[in-house]
Amino acid sequence: MKALDRLNEELEKVYLGPLWEKLGKMVTPEPDHEVMPYLWKWETIRKYLLEAGELLRLGRESERRVVYLQNPSLLKQGLIGYSTNTLYVGVQLLLPGEVAPAHRHSQSAIRFIIEGEGAYTAVDGERTYMERGDLILTPAWTWHDHGHEGTEPVIWMDGLDVGLVRNFAGSFFEPYSEDVFPVSVPHNGSTFKYATGALRPVSDRKRKGYPSPLISYKWKTTKQVLENLSKLDPDPYDGYAVDYINPLTGGSADLRIGTTMQKLTPGMHTKAHRHVHSAVYHVLDGEGYTIINGVKFEWAKGDFFILPPWSWHEHVNTGAGDAHLFSINDLPIMERLDLEREEAYDKNGGYQSIIDVFEPLSQV
Amino acid sequence: MKALDRLNEELEKVYLGPLWEKLGKMVTPEPDHEVMPYLWKWETIRKYLLEAGELLRLGRESERRVVYLQNPSLLKQGLIGYSTNTLYVGVQLLLPGEVAPAHRHSQSAIRFIIEGEGAYTAVDGERTYMERGDLILTPAWTWHDHGHEGTEPVIWMDGLDVGLVRNFAGSFFEPYSEDVFPVSVPHNGSTFKYATGALRPVSDRKRKGYPSPLISYKWKTTKQVLENLSKLDPDPYDGYAVDYINPLTGGSADLRIGTTMQKLTPGMHTKAHRHVHSAVYHVLDGEGYTIINGVKFEWAKGDFFILPPWSWHEHVNTGAGDAHLFSINDLPIMERLDLEREEAYDKNGGYQSIIDVFEPLSQV
Amino acid sequence: MKALDRLNEELEKVYLGPLWEKLGKMVTPEPDHEVMPYLWKWETIRKYLLEAGELLRLGRESERRVVYLQNPSLLKQGLIGYSTNTLYVGVQLLLPGEVAPAHRHSQSAIRFIIEGEGAYTAVDGERTYMERGDLILTPAWTWHDHGHEGTEPVIWMDGLDVGLVRNFAGSFFEPYSEDVFPVSVPHNGSTFKYATGALRPVSDRKRKGYPSPLISYKWKTTKQVLENLSKLDPDPYDGYAVDYINPLTGGSADLRIGTTMQKLTPGMHTKAHRHVHSAVYHVLDGEGYTIINGVKFEWAKGDFFILPPWSWHEHVNTGAGDAHLFSINDLPIMERLDLEREEAYDKNGGYQSIIDVFEPLSQV
Amino acid sequence: MKALDRLNEELEKVYLGPLWEKLGKMVTPEPDHEVMPYLWKWETIRKYLLEAGELLRLGRESERRVVYLQNPSLLKQGLIGYSTNTLYVGVQLLLPGEVAPAHRHSQSAIRFIIEGEGAYTAVDGERTYMERGDLILTPAWTWHDHGHEGTEPVIWMDGLDVGLVRNFAGSFFEPYSEDVFPVSVPHNGSTFKYATGALRPVSDRKRKGYPSPLISYKWKTTKQVLENLSKLDPDPYDGYAVDYINPLTGGSADLRIGTTMQKLTPGMHTKAHRHVHSAVYHVLDGEGYTIINGVKFEWAKGDFFILPPWSWHEHVNTGAGDAHLFSINDLPIMERLDLEREEAYDKNGGYQSIIDVFEPLSQV
Ligand SMILES: [Fe+2]
Ligand SMILES: [Fe+2]
Ligand SMILES: [Fe+2]
Ligand SMILES: [Fe+2]
Ligand SMILES: [Fe+2]
Ligand SMILES: [Fe+2]
Ligand SMILES: [Fe+2]
Ligand SMILES: [Fe+2]
Repeated sequence: MKALDRLNEELEKVYLGPLWEKLGKMVTPEPDHEVMPYLWKWETIRKYLLEAGELLRLGRESERRVVYLQNPSLLKQGLIGYSTNTLYVGVQLLLPGEVAPAHRHSQSAIRFIIEGEGAYTAVDGERTYMERGDLILTPAWTWHDHGHEGTEPVIWMDGLDVGLVRNFAGSFFEPYSEDVFPVSVPHNGSTFKYATGALRPVSDRKRKGYPSPLISYKWKTTKQVLENLSKLDPDPYDGYAVDYINPLTGGSADLRIGTTMQKLTPGMHTKAHRHVHSAVYHVLDGEGYTIINGVKFEWAKGDFFILPPWSWHEHVNTGAGDAHLFSINDLPIMERLDLEREEAYDKNGGYQSIIDVFEPLSQV
Repeated sequence: MKALDRLNEELEKVYLGPLWEKLGKMVTPEPDHEVMPYLWKWETIRKYLLEAGELLRLGRESERRVVYLQNPSLLKQGLIGYSTNTLYVGVQLLLPGEVAPAHRHSQSAIRFIIEGEGAYTAVDGERTYMERGDLILTPAWTWHDHGHEGTEPVIWMDGLDVGLVRNFAGSFFEPYSEDVFPVSVPHNGSTFKYATGALRPVSDRKRKGYPSPLISYKWKTTKQVLENLSKLDPDPYDGYAVDYINPLTGGSADLRIGTTMQKLTPGMHTKAHRHVHSAVYHVLDGEGYTIINGVKFEWAKGDFFILPPWSWHEHVNTGAGDAHLFSINDLPIMERLDLEREEAYDKNGGYQSIIDVFEPLSQV
Repeated sequence: MKALDRLNEELEKVYLGPLWEKLGKMVTPEPDHEVMPYLWKWETIRKYLLEAGELLRLGRESERRVVYLQNPSLLKQGLIGYSTNTLYVGVQLLLPGEVAPAHRHSQSAIRFIIEGEGAYTAVDGERTYMERGDLILTPAWTWHDHGHEGTEPVIWMDGLDVGLVRNFAGSFFEPYSEDVFPVSVPHNGSTFKYATGALRPVSDRKRKGYPSPLISYKWKTTKQVLENLSKLDPDPYDGYAVDYINPLTGGSADLRIGTTMQKLTPGMHTKAHRHVHSAVYHVLDGEGYTIINGVKFEWAKGDFFILPPWSWHEHVNTGAGDAHLFSINDLPIMERLDLEREEAYDKNGGYQSIIDVFEPLSQV
Repeated sequence: MKALDRLNEELEKVYLGPLWEKLGKMVTPEPDHEVMPYLWKWETIRKYLLEAGELLRLGRESERRVVYLQNPSLLKQGLIGYSTNTLYVGVQLLLPGEVAPAHRHSQSAIRFIIEGEGAYTAVDGERTYMERGDLILTPAWTWHDHGHEGTEPVIWMDGLDVGLVRNFAGSFFEPYSEDVFPVSVPHNGSTFKYATGALRPVSDRKRKGYPSPLISYKWKTTKQVLENLSKLDPDPYDGYAVDYINPLTGGSADLRIGTTMQKLTPGMHTKAHRHVHSAVYHVLDGEGYTIINGVKFEWAKGDFFILPPWSWHEHVNTGAGDAHLFSINDLPIMERLDLEREEAYDKNGGYQSIIDVFEPLSQV
């Protein structure tokens, strides 16, 4: 065995490797990853964001005023801006009168509106006005800018597939020559056409499937569908839940970033399962907790938390009213690459035991 | 040439044919067909239908009380029940308390509700209640029955791909063992889930694309989308128009029967074009006319008319209010088989000259 | 009931129909069609074809010298050139030095080479030279002409979807301005690239799936694959059989016309089944019979016979050597429109009783 | 600006990040990655591999005798077994009489045979025998083992999507209960059925597209197609080149790992381009060099080298005979996720200037 040790050492010197030593690191019986679950309190995020609102001016030097969620375990790997292995999440503040200048990038982005109104996102010349609870898409490589015509600060969540695109060395970015991309179509045009029903304008008969012809998904509509679903049986793992879809394909609204809204009724406690795809959750309203691999993450309105890949999880609503959890995930990618798996927790009636409680950091 | 004539004759006797004589019949420079345009007045149809309501009892002997549109030119070919070469259209009456018993068939069917309410169509155990202007699907080979819990007669349009399925020798039919297929899911369940927005319940993530998960398209919603579209540019050939789509695929609501609703604003006069796909129109409301190959077909609320394949056509709204035209077509088939073509009428600024006016038959 | 009779009559006068009388004609429990099985002897076809070779000159007046198979039952319906409800089959003769001039049409066409060599089919400027047993495609709307540089007559089978295209009113035809379309790529180029293996030139990475990049399927290759398959288990209904496929899609070689070659070893007797799709068979070599709905159709080298939709059929090789049956079918259409069904014959161990023997007509 | 610095620091403490500082790290104008180009000499690899043949016994403790290519720059990131950001390549030795025991994993694998014969790979019970130049697939999650019935050592290249699967936390592995998975179908069965032509056995009409029904691509066939292609124009960037495809889909042979073989004729010098997808090359035969981002990588028979993402590259054959380069790449993933881009080098007539020559390490 001495000889083999020597061989192993010699290989290393010429950048060759002995698989007999390392196979177990490359091909693991179950997913082995560095993504830890984590939770951020809304008060903390919001406080810093408003502070940045006072200290930072938008412009070509600093195009966006965003505080992003940095997964501590991925920071250790030098992975800046990673919430999970594939997903980035930030929280953005736009003040009345401001413009976040136009650019485009190969990363897909979604916005989920948390606070305020009167701001818009413009995608390829179509402005969509924001209201709390709306989902707005800026598909990969579309020109986009944000503006604010209202009177109060507007805050929203940004979700991008930063990790994914970086892993694949596929990042491209281009600033637009002016701050505002020219408006070319009526405001909120995509919701005129597509948001209300399963109907396609005849002029779109030959339109390509992606990017989605629908840019904005109104909270009013989503809420209504969740209400409707509540008359039927809930999903055992997600309660009453929907994926936002592209009306021209039936697939995920964004090609690569999955987007989901779920409603948990008072007292609802979903069963535990795990899946390869990871997610980042935002609590639109309500209070409760999620158990991730035995650790209790308590959440309330505005909080964000991370569900790592292949981690047991179950949700509990402890409040008096409905809780709404919005989340982004990388399920569309897992499906396209045939990497998704799902497993139900079959012990203890489908519920985990709580072995620890997460203590969120706070500087407030 | 005498010798060739003799050869042609001899071939005929042994059921062989001389292509040099017949090529032009098989492969024509442009579509050559026997489908004529035609129009039926609502008063005529309705009168006979109500009469049948008095004379005919529903049951296994006569499962449906329907008066169908028989294209005169296709009747000559012995093609019973053909409105166009592929499509059948009937008008059905159901009286309070009646049941049209459960069966299934390989033909796809759609229903478009014209008059009354309180009746339902049940598809595989899910009842959908009817209101004027709604579109209801009964996809091929799904069990379906109709019942009426209201107090007034209900009348609707049926559209089936009878000609298509007959041409392909694909007809299968099976009566259900009982009159009513057991109700297994909540009433109107599909609209709860799918009709309101581009959202998919997470429990349908792995559901097959066809048949559509959405069985009923409410008029209220369709009308709203047409209102919205009216703020944008109209389609030159169809005005403000939408196709009903399957939210899981973005394709036609029914796999084989296309369904379209168009709105013509007062005075609107669309440009003429023609296409391989054929259609049958029903006037939901309004008045005006359609020019088909130079012949004027005047229509008013309730009327039905036929647009044959590859026929020039343009629509005019002559009324004071909006006109709404619902139509079924065979475009989905043409696209799947790569047979569709479209051509704009390029003479006379895009408008045909009227060379004749169609006189509808009437026994009223 | 008198009153109902009167109503039925009145309806007829205004081109409306009483579904309660006619439902059973439109929606049948099983396919109801007018396609009869039939068989033509090779001697008969060939004799007349050679006679036409003496009597008919090719040119723009008579572009092709073809004797086609006219199904007698469909002739009664006035359906000229229909072998089945969707398919046309002809047998074409080209003499040394002749050119069958260039044109294109919306019908798809396939050629199967029966006799002779030295002739070619040119598709969009690429010539493919013919050898006995080869399959050559001329996909819908591609320019094609045939020429003959050899010394002996060449005879091949033509298969077109004439009935299909006519049913859908989709026929378009255009002659080319000259007799021969300009040659633009090397002869037999598609087989250079695609016929030998599951390999795609990198320059075709973005090529559309249809039409097939492979125009010619050599008999030598097909025969070899059938030899290989013979070491494995045969298909119970088709013996050793393959479909010709498009290497860029894995689907049928032609988008709409299915093409199949099957090998029956001496004594092989396949089990009976039926399916919605219809077919026309050509006996490349061997002798035997096929039982269609209880009627025995005896065949030998060169013969053609028709398998109607939804008809029980089983094949028997009575010769000392292998029999090879080439056939075209409308399965690709049935699959695209979700109309295909298949049923195994479950009586009598899977074999039909012979109740009659078909007597082919002959003028020889 | 002091206040903003303080804010940045405070954010860091609670695992939040200031996007205004870091945007440029996440979203770069062009791909920013740590993958360096590299080259390993065949003599070095082979020497160590044979040494391992003497020192290491196969068994459940060490299932495979493989020396893998460790990209030096990725080793620095702690990424063990990464040749590129997505791909792993190893070189495997199997000695006569040995068995590499059966297992399965969610990573896809391909084998490319370098030396020897008489060994086989068994995939789900089907053994495929190896010959130099063959490509053999073991699609993700299929059971596979290797055995050797010959008399000389066999050496092959392994390619797996280790990095990809790790990035997505999708690794699953399972050993089979016995060393050899039971043989259930004839040896080399997939090449019997699929390797020779564009033909699909009728019994596979309903078979799913992936995994490929074809497991082995014989060098003899691939070589022939490259010969054929050589009569046509070469690809400007790849010479005469083919992708191995799945005959049921027309897509990449493996769902996630692209596989390509290219032939460079004597003196051929391809033009430079770059693309997002990365590759690992193996020189089947010939000698020449590849310029990657201005650095010359000289190669000869048996060598391996790495092409990083978005790197200019051009190939030159300096030998007297043809050079054949086999490569694996992650193009199928880039296409599925819509991340691929390609750019031609437009300076200097399309050719790079050489600014450096790579010096391979060697312990021989
Ligand atoms: Fe952006
Ligand atoms: Fe989950
Ligand atoms: Fe029905
Ligand atoms: Fe039209
Ligand atoms: Fe032709
Ligand atoms: Fe059959
Ligand atoms: Fe393995
Ligand atoms: Fe390249």
